[in-house]
Amino acid sequence: MQQRTSLITLGARDVPALALFYDALGWARTPSPEGVVAYDLIGQTLGLYPLDKLAEDIGVPVAELGHGASTLGHNVRQKPEVAEILTRAQEAGARLLKPAQDVFWGGHHGYFADPEGHIWEIAYNPFSPLRADGAFRWLGYEAE
Amino acid sequence: MQQRTSLITLGARDVPALALFYDALGWARTPSPEGVVAYDLIGQTLGLYPLDKLAEDIGVPVAELGHGASTLGHNVRQKPEVAEILTRAQEAGARLLKPAQDVFWGGHHGYFADPEGHIWEIAYNPFSPLRADGAFRWLGYEAE
Repeated sequence: MQQRTSLITLGARDVPALALFYDALGWARTPSPEGVVAYDLIGQTLGLYPLDKLAEDIGVPVAELGHGASTLGHNVRQKPEVAEILTRAQEAGARLLKPAQDVFWGGHHGYFADPEGHIWEIAYNPFSPLRADGAFRWLGYEAE
Repeated sequence: MQQRTSLITLGARDVPALALFYDALGWARTPSPEGVVAYDLIGQTLGLYPLDKLAEDIGVPVAELGHGASTLGHNVRQKPEVAEILTRAQEAGARLLKPAQDVFWGGHHGYFADPEGHIWEIAYNPFSPLRADGAFRWLGYEAE
């Protein structure tokens, strides 16, 4: 099993409403069948899919989908972008969980929950510079 | 906010034990501070982090981390790889949620839950060929 994800699927009670949130962040949808909303990320896709259908597809109760705790991280190039994105997310309907602040390890971050509770961390990490195309890896890319 | 994730963080009650599961899938760890385990994916990193510390870091109760339903997808190039990976995951301690099977839209897939309940879909999608490096996008890459 290669080290990669292809799809991150967010189960949603109201897919169209949740999609408006991601649209409002400035994201562009990729054509997809009715009932599914897809956003191509770098080398993978984030999909919004009805919660009940997702549970049915997997063969588990809806409640079980919430058992795997996880967050989605989005790193930025400049410290002030953290607060900017948190503000934009709030304007788009997110719930601020943690305002932008310095972190003990030398970074700067904050958290929001999207309208259906998926948790995003927005972070500035001076020790892990992003690649030109925005790609991230743990130990960073060389400055370009 | 660019369309990308940088980190996928899986909250874990027992980080070392959960890491052994991902190791057993054949994944290689990237050097990281004690208490954190990191796997570089393509253009992003999957991190394992203690559930209580993750909740504390975000400022929410542990129970709230489970509220955002999501799954992680891993697409393969050949149909038989779906069953192979599901088997390997079970051998490594995963719970099989859905055995490999054809899907109505013409693909083939199955699901497993890792030892802490994070749900993975392993899928073969003949309409969305992967890039040579394994990268995925919704409408696929040209055959190479």
